[in-house]
Amino acid sequence: MALVNPHGGGPLKALLLQGDALKAEQARAKSLPQLKVSSREAGDIIMLGIGGFTPLDGFMTKADWQGVCDGMKMANGLFWPIPVTLSTDDEAVKAGSDVALADSQTGEILATMRVSEKYAIDKAHECMQVYKTTDAAHPGVKMVMDQGKYNLAGPIKVLSTGDFKEKYGDQFMTPAETRAKFEQMGWKRIAAFQTRNPMHRSHEYLAKIAIETMDGVLVHSLLGNLKPGDIPADVRSEAIATLVDNYFAPNTVIQAGYPLDMRYAGPREALLHALFRQNYGCSHLIVGRDHAGVGDYYGPFDAQHIFDEIPKGSLETVNMNIDWTFWCNKCGGMASQRTCPHTKDDRILLSGTKVRSMLSEGQDLPVEFSRPEVAAVLKKYYQGLTAEQNVKVELKGHSAA
Amino acid sequence: MALVNPHGGGPLKALLLQGDALKAEQARAKSLPQLKVSSREAGDIIMLGIGGFTPLDGFMTKADWQGVCDGMKMANGLFWPIPVTLSTDDEAVKAGSDVALADSQTGEILATMRVSEKYAIDKAHECMQVYKTTDAAHPGVKMVMDQGKYNLAGPIKVLSTGDFKEKYGDQFMTPAETRAKFEQMGWKRIAAFQTRNPMHRSHEYLAKIAIETMDGVLVHSLLGNLKPGDIPADVRSEAIATLVDNYFAPNTVIQAGYPLDMRYAGPREALLHALFRQNYGCSHLIVGRDHAGVGDYYGPFDAQHIFDEIPKGSLETVNMNIDWTFWCNKCGGMASQRTCPHTKDDRILLSGTKVRSMLSEGQDLPVEFSRPEVAAVLKKYYQGLTAEQNVKVELKGHSAA
Repeated sequence: MALVNPHGGGPLKALLLQGDALKAEQARAKSLPQLKVSSREAGDIIMLGIGGFTPLDGFMTKADWQGVCDGMKMANGLFWPIPVTLSTDDEAVKAGSDVALADSQTGEILATMRVSEKYAIDKAHECMQVYKTTDAAHPGVKMVMDQGKYNLAGPIKVLSTGDFKEKYGDQFMTPAETRAKFEQMGWKRIAAFQTRNPMHRSHEYLAKIAIETMDGVLVHSLLGNLKPGDIPADVRSEAIATLVDNYFAPNTVIQAGYPLDMRYAGPREALLHALFRQNYGCSHLIVGRDHAGVGDYYGPFDAQHIFDEIPKGSLETVNMNIDWTFWCNKCGGMASQRTCPHTKDDRILLSGTKVRSMLSEGQDLPVEFSRPEVAAVLKKYYQGLTAEQNVKVELKGHSAA
Repeated sequence: MALVNPHGGGPLKALLLQGDALKAEQARAKSLPQLKVSSREAGDIIMLGIGGFTPLDGFMTKADWQGVCDGMKMANGLFWPIPVTLSTDDEAVKAGSDVALADSQTGEILATMRVSEKYAIDKAHECMQVYKTTDAAHPGVKMVMDQGKYNLAGPIKVLSTGDFKEKYGDQFMTPAETRAKFEQMGWKRIAAFQTRNPMHRSHEYLAKIAIETMDGVLVHSLLGNLKPGDIPADVRSEAIATLVDNYFAPNTVIQAGYPLDMRYAGPREALLHALFRQNYGCSHLIVGRDHAGVGDYYGPFDAQHIFDEIPKGSLETVNMNIDWTFWCNKCGGMASQRTCPHTKDDRILLSGTKVRSMLSEGQDLPVEFSRPEVAAVLKKYYQGLTAEQNVKVELKGHSAA
């Protein structure tokens, strides 16, 4: 038995140039017309660069876009659940031309692209198909609606992975790196645990269920732009490392991150999460309640059910479904709605707002909710914030899950 | 998705006759020469009768025996890990004759058999191949060594399932019955939990890990002859039912039993356990530490590893491996050696002997070891035993696991 194959069954396809080829293309890029790319597009470029979107070689054509929207299938038949597209309002860019793609926030040129096709899309159609709604209050829908008038398709050459390596250090692992690490550890069955927050006991329990029956867990954090209220990556990372050091057996957890923006597409995004975890070498993706969802747009288990609806063989990486988890006093242990027959009154449940206010005020969290060592890391962070920062955090909120 | 197929891919093959065919064969059986069968053979006959050994149609030929011993493969290529054979010392029985097979304990005729072949085996070879030892202190080896001089092969017609239905009631479910129940519950992914003892928290934890990620668990007890020190089936069943009622969510556990004798063949028996659980409709078999082992004949994880060594596709039912489980004070919860980084000093561990003596003396078990409701059922049983019975229990011992 070996690791799961990269998506599509071939080798990893990392579009980041190296060495002389990189230098030459960087020089050429300076002379090309520049397009500014959005945060989501920049994340996609970096993901293409490190091979996380294997076997794509650039942004999707109209036929790909249509197939992915309507049937989760590219023109060549490859399974793909969410369009990976680049947009512009620039009337000057023509098919056949080369452009440089620059990060709109930093100005850095991330890639060059040979434009093979310029096409308009029915944005509402994409939103209905992928997000099941055209409500502009949905952050993923808003991203699509805010796109330029045209999509540009074509192969890209990636020149940079931005500042991820600098900002996140060893945590920014490429699919080739996680695969090498898994092989070094002798792991074959690996569950990816998707998170962008510190891990409380409910998350520890999810990860441990996976470890009980598999070789290990990849705690895989969403890196990238933070929103006010999010715990900064270094604090989150320290909190998770503290948990792992104190409460997990050695060599059962690897902590790493990936550069994408959340689309909040719920079920379709759960499939994308499984797809790129396959590229990272994970055999399973932990799919909890309302995975990658936002608001009430998706049923709590839609992201689990969709794995049963896609054609067999679409992905090698499979879902490991878990219900909502908590400490139950009557169970005298961690449990989920699948395993606990008791009622809410017996369960230790705290909202994200409550957790934050307790930590900000220097209170201890219940040990059934959060490990004291983890709470201490978070308490230190919240207490270090100014009153003004704490109010901002309060206003924007953040999920404890 | 549907339930796993019966072994071999065809329909269930239950050799128990029904209605007029049964009456006619029962009448004919009385006129046939009778052979007494051992407890192990009687269990195999009943298992063949209810379809648990699908697709066998009787006892194995020499070619089957040889193939199963040497390569876990019958003459027709079908995967089978342990010989299913019938033996006799009777010189008069000839190939081509019909015999009646009677339970040596009750005298009841369980089946008729058309003898297709009479052959001698190298018992030591079977023991080395299947049990990895010829030590007569091994109870499975002893069963083989105690066999008659000849094996008899041939198809059987089963006339009775003995007194299992009478003694165990609804718990004695046939493969057709468990499959119908699973379909009625809408279950597809079902883990079988093999036990012949009451369930303490360590066993509850194993079952709950399965329930967290699957549709349900079949708590599948070994029924049949009890040894001194074993908890009687009604007490065990009451203890398990009490646990399920109080600590499992509704519709996640089914309790049933099967009629085989243990062979204690460790790894090979784990494969047999998976094989017949496939016939019962279970997609997974929980394989813990030293599954179906005895003494120190097998490494603690040999029964897990062997599933990786058999040819792919040998079985549809797969192993769900779990390490030794316990309550850990530092974890503040149930854990296993896979998930707990702490030491023995932090773990609540009680030997079977200790548990028994505490219960006999009316002491409470730690709530971290056993649910109070379960301990109460066991305490009632042990306290009801006479001093003499308790001494016997003490001498023979029983595993708490």
